[in-house]
Amino acid sequence: MSESADIIMFERGDYVSFANCGLPYHIGGDIESRDALLLQTPQSFKQRFNVDVRVRSNVEAINPLAQTVTVRNLDSNECYQQPYDKLLLSPGAKSIAPAIDGLSNNRTFTLRTLPDMDQIQTLIDRDQPSHATVLGGGFIGLEAAEALRQRGIDVALVELGPQVMANVDAEMASPLHQELADHGVDLRLATALMSVEDNGDSLALKLSNGASLTTELLILATGVKPETELAEQAGIALGANGGIKVNSRMETSITNIFAAGDAVEHVDLVTGQPALIPLAGPANRQGRIAADNMLGSDKHYKATQGTSVCRVFDLTIAATGSSEKALLKAKRKYEKIYVHPMNHAGYFPGATAVSLKLLFEPNDGVILGAQAVGKDGVDKRIDVIAMAIRAKLTVFDLEEQELCYAPPYGSAKDVVNLAGFVAANYLRGESDICQVDDVLAPNPQQVVLDVRNPPELINTGAIEGAVNIPLDSLRERLNELDRDKEYLVSCMVGLRAHVATRLLINSGFKAKNMTGGFKTYQMVLAAKAVTS
Amino acid sequence: MSESADIIMFERGDYVSFANCGLPYHIGGDIESRDALLLQTPQSFKQRFNVDVRVRSNVEAINPLAQTVTVRNLDSNECYQQPYDKLLLSPGAKSIAPAIDGLSNNRTFTLRTLPDMDQIQTLIDRDQPSHATVLGGGFIGLEAAEALRQRGIDVALVELGPQVMANVDAEMASPLHQELADHGVDLRLATALMSVEDNGDSLALKLSNGASLTTELLILATGVKPETELAEQAGIALGANGGIKVNSRMETSITNIFAAGDAVEHVDLVTGQPALIPLAGPANRQGRIAADNMLGSDKHYKATQGTSVCRVFDLTIAATGSSEKALLKAKRKYEKIYVHPMNHAGYFPGATAVSLKLLFEPNDGVILGAQAVGKDGVDKRIDVIAMAIRAKLTVFDLEEQELCYAPPYGSAKDVVNLAGFVAANYLRGESDICQVDDVLAPNPQQVVLDVRNPPELINTGAIEGAVNIPLDSLRERLNELDRDKEYLVSCMVGLRAHVATRLLINSGFKAKNMTGGFKTYQMVLAAKAVTS
Repeated sequence: MSESADIIMFERGDYVSFANCGLPYHIGGDIESRDALLLQTPQSFKQRFNVDVRVRSNVEAINPLAQTVTVRNLDSNECYQQPYDKLLLSPGAKSIAPAIDGLSNNRTFTLRTLPDMDQIQTLIDRDQPSHATVLGGGFIGLEAAEALRQRGIDVALVELGPQVMANVDAEMASPLHQELADHGVDLRLATALMSVEDNGDSLALKLSNGASLTTELLILATGVKPETELAEQAGIALGANGGIKVNSRMETSITNIFAAGDAVEHVDLVTGQPALIPLAGPANRQGRIAADNMLGSDKHYKATQGTSVCRVFDLTIAATGSSEKALLKAKRKYEKIYVHPMNHAGYFPGATAVSLKLLFEPNDGVILGAQAVGKDGVDKRIDVIAMAIRAKLTVFDLEEQELCYAPPYGSAKDVVNLAGFVAANYLRGESDICQVDDVLAPNPQQVVLDVRNPPELINTGAIEGAVNIPLDSLRERLNELDRDKEYLVSCMVGLRAHVATRLLINSGFKAKNMTGGFKTYQMVLAAKAVTS
Repeated sequence: MSESADIIMFERGDYVSFANCGLPYHIGGDIESRDALLLQTPQSFKQRFNVDVRVRSNVEAINPLAQTVTVRNLDSNECYQQPYDKLLLSPGAKSIAPAIDGLSNNRTFTLRTLPDMDQIQTLIDRDQPSHATVLGGGFIGLEAAEALRQRGIDVALVELGPQVMANVDAEMASPLHQELADHGVDLRLATALMSVEDNGDSLALKLSNGASLTTELLILATGVKPETELAEQAGIALGANGGIKVNSRMETSITNIFAAGDAVEHVDLVTGQPALIPLAGPANRQGRIAADNMLGSDKHYKATQGTSVCRVFDLTIAATGSSEKALLKAKRKYEKIYVHPMNHAGYFPGATAVSLKLLFEPNDGVILGAQAVGKDGVDKRIDVIAMAIRAKLTVFDLEEQELCYAPPYGSAKDVVNLAGFVAANYLRGESDICQVDDVLAPNPQQVVLDVRNPPELINTGAIEGAVNIPLDSLRERLNELDRDKEYLVSCMVGLRAHVATRLLINSGFKAKNMTGGFKTYQMVLAAKAVTS
């Protein structure tokens, strides 16, 4: 934006612009070269952009009246005052250290910086540990667990909550639990780490359920919180969630001081409420907007929707917009449907299911959020719905959307279309739906009807108390049904149950389709089993 | 929609609901089982949906006044009148047979139906041909060429136009030409087939350039046109492009007669003009809308945007909205930019470039079309932009869009974002652009400046007449430049040239970034080379 501005960047650590999202993948061996993680150096930044990057320089105070920052050179230990016209705070977030005794030992690390990664690598190379423990099942915890398994290390993953990946709903996370177990991760859900004892060549971990673990490496991945000390000391206002408060121009409460990235609070696109959503994409955009505005532009940041993705061994999980639990918390009305279609034409080899949950406004069908899990094509569907959410589109738009189709890539009725169909059919009153919870506790006027073929029930399990009439016999067996009852209809993924529901309604019966079928039923039950 | 309606389906051929998009993949061996292509049978359709499917039943006439159709049973050769309340015409499209002598032989086939595929398979199995020729380089022609190569057969692909995949612009198709050549396809562009001579165990093909080919199998893939004879005979109006004319309810010009699928004309979403876009997704949606309306609903089809994708060996090409040539033909104003970012984080293994062309309104930035080609992640980006086009979004929305990011899936600044940045920077006047054509013919006041490093010019080629100053030396070498000139700046993909353009503008020079850099330059030159 400017050749005339003097631009100085202060960094406390040794590095600028390293690929922190790549750290777990270097530990796991996917990224072989450590150098590949170093995107810019102070020298390259100076050469190309004429930016004066000062590493090992800790900003100790902001002096808004004088418009200076107090900087300590960590090598010389000398302090100096650096004047500014405009100041950008981008200190990021720091790991939340759990309040547990014994964490200060040389086998316990966080995984946010290059030095963190180097220390973990050094320990692995030196000790060839046979067992490691990851505390926390979010993005970093999951990626770290996978990386350690790729190195042949036994891994315990200890998670306080009843599910990994807290940003999605419990039933959508449940396939990840199976995937982790299938890849040899010893998953301990709903379990707290109580204490750590350093035995020299290993750590003894005590867990809340009374169990103990002997481990040689402990990675803390229990989340992050904004680095706000410097801002607070300068009198800069924080927001409701403890991040630096900024307006849409990325200006803080003090004139000429801007902030961007994981340290600030965003507006959540769906709820309109302030939120802490530490993601790389929003941080990047905010940085550019802040820079433009510092040099005289008038650009505005337009809310964060929390689009995210994580690889968990052979599965991908992704989400955008609000989760069901976030909507419940925000007391927003919503409706939800599930689909499990193939990622591409079923007759083309390699087709695998994408399990997708769609949340939308019951009145107008505006899309509120989506989550998906599967082996392939998950990120694509969430990206498409992310665009729809940004544009305030409805489930009726998803129904109509024209997407790439050839057998290796999708289907003429894509996953996104199918989700739209189910939701739109429901909102138009053409195919009423019910949820797994309804089927688990039907009222006396309701009958659960499973329209799968008997061998499917034997192979994958039956719904307790359900009547079984296969779809293709239903028309000739309508006389077995009771017109005074309401039928809650289920099949494997919800398609045959939809056809059955229409058949029943058109024949004068009351019927609802259990959205997502037995596959959703299994996911919900697996999630419930953790806490029961 | 109804249990009480009597629903009869007439099909001239032996099969209903076969996976015609899968036919080339069965020939190539990707889809091993022929049965996998049979999605529904008359029996399954009767059982599940109570539809009376009559195959080998040719509808010979529609009698709108009597509200009947005349049907010939192709087995008994008897005719009967079938009354209707509502009639749906979904005859599809038929292959355009080129006007060439000698095509009637037993080695020449189209590839639209299961019997077509069976005949080709039979010939391959029987004769083990060493050489086959495909006439036409559209979707079917490309898929057929790939399938034949997978069977170890030498393939010539003869295409009348200067490029394959006529729905995208020539420079975007040029990587496909290289890919075809790299996989042993003998590609003959801008070449017509003049005559075919049947020599019993082979065909002698004469081409427009005087060359001849001896081939054992000839597949005609020269496009399709709507099957409209029946509709025309009944007095149903056709549209400007020769397809059956329908309103948004899928009603034809005659009461109680609906039409859907490849036989009808759609409204093009971008141009608003009638268009023939034979694609599976739109056909599916139209069928459902027509059915709903035939049973009393009031649903409306909302234009086709032509989202499409094709696999060509290891490349994927996809497009949505209008191409540049379509916009030129429609006399629409547009601007265009190119980007070539990696499909996912460059430091994560397996990253490959996605070459994307974005077309947009010069005034307000509304997106008009996009095309992309690359090895991976192409369909995802086109699907996201397809959603944006449907929502009438602008390049400014692409700039802001929040998409899935983790190193295996994307980048914090995704391909779609980068395309948005380039277009939005241009529209805001922050970074003016020029095109390859400008660089090929600079005016006397313009200088072409290549800011790549000298080894890159040696390895990949230089732009004729360009001055070379590497970006990282540019700031200290500004004194070599002339303030009276305008600099047309190029690098490899357009990023360094953007930085250089900003540096020059901020230093008081006139400069424009050649969008897409040397990579676009090469694609444009390759396309021009075909016709020169």
